[in-house]
Amino acid sequence: MLFEPEKLYKKEIAKFEKKYSKLITNKKPKSLYEPCNHIIKSSGKRLRPFLVMLSALAVNGKISSVINAAIAVELLHNFTLVHDDIMDNADKRRGRVTLHVKYNTNVAILAGDNLIALAYKSLLKDCKHSTNDVVNDFTQGIVEVCEGQSLDTDFEIRKKVTKEEYVTMIQKKTASLLETCCSIGARLGGGNKQEISALRKYGNYLGLAFQIQDDILDIMAKEKELGKKIGGDLIEGKKTYLLLSALHKAKGKDKELLKKVIANKGIKSNQVDSYRKLFIKLGVIEDASKQVNNYTKLALKQLKSIKNEQAKISLEWLANYLTNRKK
Amino acid sequence: MLFEPEKLYKKEIAKFEKKYSKLITNKKPKSLYEPCNHIIKSSGKRLRPFLVMLSALAVNGKISSVINAAIAVELLHNFTLVHDDIMDNADKRRGRVTLHVKYNTNVAILAGDNLIALAYKSLLKDCKHSTNDVVNDFTQGIVEVCEGQSLDTDFEIRKKVTKEEYVTMIQKKTASLLETCCSIGARLGGGNKQEISALRKYGNYLGLAFQIQDDILDIMAKEKELGKKIGGDLIEGKKTYLLLSALHKAKGKDKELLKKVIANKGIKSNQVDSYRKLFIKLGVIEDASKQVNNYTKLALKQLKSIKNEQAKISLEWLANYLTNRKK
Repeated sequence: MLFEPEKLYKKEIAKFEKKYSKLITNKKPKSLYEPCNHIIKSSGKRLRPFLVMLSALAVNGKISSVINAAIAVELLHNFTLVHDDIMDNADKRRGRVTLHVKYNTNVAILAGDNLIALAYKSLLKDCKHSTNDVVNDFTQGIVEVCEGQSLDTDFEIRKKVTKEEYVTMIQKKTASLLETCCSIGARLGGGNKQEISALRKYGNYLGLAFQIQDDILDIMAKEKELGKKIGGDLIEGKKTYLLLSALHKAKGKDKELLKKVIANKGIKSNQVDSYRKLFIKLGVIEDASKQVNNYTKLALKQLKSIKNEQAKISLEWLANYLTNRKK
Repeated sequence: MLFEPEKLYKKEIAKFEKKYSKLITNKKPKSLYEPCNHIIKSSGKRLRPFLVMLSALAVNGKISSVINAAIAVELLHNFTLVHDDIMDNADKRRGRVTLHVKYNTNVAILAGDNLIALAYKSLLKDCKHSTNDVVNDFTQGIVEVCEGQSLDTDFEIRKKVTKEEYVTMIQKKTASLLETCCSIGARLGGGNKQEISALRKYGNYLGLAFQIQDDILDIMAKEKELGKKIGGDLIEGKKTYLLLSALHKAKGKDKELLKKVIANKGIKSNQVDSYRKLFIKLGVIEDASKQVNNYTKLALKQLKSIKNEQAKISLEWLANYLTNRKK
């Protein structure tokens, strides 16, 4: 029978959800653990946990031996969302009201802090060996996420940002955590240096492709599929890969129009359509899609030496799935 | 020559400061590391680092082998201060302007998050063995601090809080981190189960004594010595050990006066004097001092089996020093 990666994904994530949803039961004080649970009960693609599992499998480790590590990266990811949402003043996340809106900022700060600690607790449960390296990689992931978030905030104020600087930022803010997932999965699965390094690079390139695809979807997706307003990044005046490319390519009147996005700190909802057309005219969407494909190819290239066939197929499937996603 | 613990303290903390002050040099982005450095450059008693050192020495480990762990606990302590100051809306800390006031709340949230990660990074440097246990204890410290902070916030809203509940809160919010210092110092120093357990208890009792002494100093110290306004807890309407004891003991008119502190969410500066007199009249200061002495005695009792004489003398000195401090 043909191996179907999507079936593996559904099966393993179902197991994951069962354990993850029971992580906090009857813990006190309620004022701390109820908000933490609100976050844990939010749905998600569980991309990061699946990466941990597949990276362990890739080096012929057992998926069952890294479930707690998979929970750890999801907790860590959620900590970043909770604190980012405070900083970004975001009201909603994945269709649910954000923590600092549902409760208050203090509760959200504290719940985020506690999620970090719960993440480490969970991670340690799966550390039967290589503990120092695994915890170090995990911690480096946090450092880079903080650095990336700080750069992102810097870019908001700065007038000029290059595409290269943008890539450095998303490498830290998004790609580093995917890299962490792969490296700790591979380490806990018993991988050797070469395997860990290859999977780590896979995670990094996957993260870059993922984030630029995110930027594209923000303006090119259908509102129904995306589940949120189209053009949000432009409305908020975010310096995404698309806007930076467009500024680089445009001349004359077009350039003036694009500069307005930054000068006015965003555009109005009814202007999104015309900017989308401008992006298409300038070939910016095409360029960005090429970038996504390039990074995806680089990610796939790292999988050459992967021994475990099921993991290899699944990691390939995952990369292609993320590149072609509509939401 | 007689061994002088204060000399050991000064000598070892001087070494600590040298390394600690250089922790972050030329790291980017500046927007993240400058605020982190602002915190690192703040002075402090360095009580927690010294506890790590003495606990290692107590089991005949080398102080030099736990310097990074000592840095880790100071970073962790400072993370709690940065996030607590946001939650408490505090403008100043140790005479310096707080991070969210100097920069803004977003910067302070992110710097705090990064301090946690830097703390783990530093801790791992000293983990040549027992890594899982050490990192687990460290993480448990964070969990308890979060739980304690959450309880503290709960108490602000609740009308009635018992003295027992208050002790549970300070056990988590203050004592647990001192316990962590002792346990990781003892573990890294190569201590056995009994030694780790004894030192852990020492840290816990020391923390309880320390916090209640803090409550006493807040109203009984001299402003010049304390370096901040006297009666701050009462002005803010904080349910300290003193206020809870007083409410328990008082009757009639006195009780009505005390209830006003809670009903009005604090008192005015010019009322501090009369409340101090009331506390003294009710014997509340005496009771609290007895409690401090009890906890200090319990802390000292744990040191009976400590092998290393210098560590023993220093841990005794530290407990007595903290109990008798004027600031």
